[in-house]
Amino acid sequence: MSLETVSINCAHGGAQGVYRHASAATATDMTFSVFVPEHGEDEKLPVVWWLSGLTCTHANVTEKGEYRAACAKHRLIFVAPDTSPRGENVPDDPKGAYDFGLGAGFYVDATQDPWAAHYRMWSYVTEELPKLLFANFPADPKRQSIMGHSMGGHGALTIGLNYPERFRAVSAFAPIVAPSQVPWGQKALRNYLGSDQTAWRKHDAVALIEDGARLPELLVDQGAADQFLDTELRPDLLRTACVGAGIDLTLHLRPGYDHSYYFVSTFMAGHLAWHAARLI
Amino acid sequence: MSLETVSINCAHGGAQGVYRHASAATATDMTFSVFVPEHGEDEKLPVVWWLSGLTCTHANVTEKGEYRAACAKHRLIFVAPDTSPRGENVPDDPKGAYDFGLGAGFYVDATQDPWAAHYRMWSYVTEELPKLLFANFPADPKRQSIMGHSMGGHGALTIGLNYPERFRAVSAFAPIVAPSQVPWGQKALRNYLGSDQTAWRKHDAVALIEDGARLPELLVDQGAADQFLDTELRPDLLRTACVGAGIDLTLHLRPGYDHSYYFVSTFMAGHLAWHAARLI
Repeated sequence: MSLETVSINCAHGGAQGVYRHASAATATDMTFSVFVPEHGEDEKLPVVWWLSGLTCTHANVTEKGEYRAACAKHRLIFVAPDTSPRGENVPDDPKGAYDFGLGAGFYVDATQDPWAAHYRMWSYVTEELPKLLFANFPADPKRQSIMGHSMGGHGALTIGLNYPERFRAVSAFAPIVAPSQVPWGQKALRNYLGSDQTAWRKHDAVALIEDGARLPELLVDQGAADQFLDTELRPDLLRTACVGAGIDLTLHLRPGYDHSYYFVSTFMAGHLAWHAARLI
Repeated sequence: MSLETVSINCAHGGAQGVYRHASAATATDMTFSVFVPEHGEDEKLPVVWWLSGLTCTHANVTEKGEYRAACAKHRLIFVAPDTSPRGENVPDDPKGAYDFGLGAGFYVDATQDPWAAHYRMWSYVTEELPKLLFANFPADPKRQSIMGHSMGGHGALTIGLNYPERFRAVSAFAPIVAPSQVPWGQKALRNYLGSDQTAWRKHDAVALIEDGARLPELLVDQGAADQFLDTELRPDLLRTACVGAGIDLTLHLRPGYDHSYYFVSTFMAGHLAWHAARLI
């Protein structure tokens, strides 16, 4: 797997890179960004995985996430994949909707045509990209954590719950916590995975917890003025599930904050400090 | 002068707004952003003016500048104007070049046709927008400072040198310090102001200092790997002028850093702390 450097910029004492490679998982080229703080020559650093939301590429958090100062301070590598396969042969939502298809891979391996050929973001993010990362960057596979925003918060929670031994910390900003119960998730899961809802449960944080998946703790920030709060995000469902399962959920409801990167960037340094304390 | 709110988002405990208004100076609509940190009901806060570089609008620094955490900490209002007039009737560089016309107002009042009708960024930034700001935001006119990047560094230095009593601190990131001596500046000043170079000197930081303009001190950060360093920026010329004039210039040459917002955002908090110490 060879890696093409798209750009690399000095930032906060480290290097903010953007990279492209031919992905076996998605059968497309994929682009992602990695921030590597200043470090010793043979030193391996902890890794924070960032999963982005609907309509995003790697670029949104890379430009607007305000994570580099905190990653430099705590000496964390920060990885931001794209949110779907892209390219000429990749099908999109027939109506070009923002919530399905391009920019909306939902971190699943699609089983339904025509999506199954390329929409394999689960394998990409949990298997292929980690291998590429650890082969090419000074990243310590024993010290990983994961976080994300909105659809990417869904990705972080479901991947974290499926691989509890892999991640020392799991957190999310305004996550979709129960995709099986909300319009964004129902559209995506039905189209990608088919109408048999048993296949959806592995990709639904609340269902996973109901089915016995466990993490010791979770950190979630949610804007109280988020326009998607009651229709798509439903942190109340996560709270109920965590209470039932004995998962220590810290849920901050932030008055006045919306769904944007102005919200994410405000609380990014706090999440990274929380992750750093668990990655030492 | 009525003000239209384009957007407002909670961020870092304050409000990041974007506003539009009909400008008398430019005879166009103008858009700018203002961050107002949390503050008391009748409290007035110090103001940092940010001037952006070639090709930018208010949005570049607003999204990528990483200034809000520091402005919240030091309780500073941060204002980012656009870099030129825009609109159907506004002429652009005949070849659409990035370094003249739209996105390249150079913070002068043009005297040459066809630019003179709209390209009046000097009056806009030094007169009209301050009036609008102090009439509409909790900003203290007695505590102002100014900074900028590249062409906006040129703007900050020249406005600071022309109004030394107005600004308690002046700093710049990778500024054009001597536009009369470099291609970007020569093209802009000749087209906007005509070929008589005596009219250029008010808009050339090095020439202003040679002509007797004074500030007690200046702070400049410059990336050592900036592709425009030797051709357009020439901090050496500013250093020579400051030494000759007894101006206390702190010039940081930053190894590895380029001309981008990855550079700006890295050193933004440091500049804002320096400004804050002078704005208390």
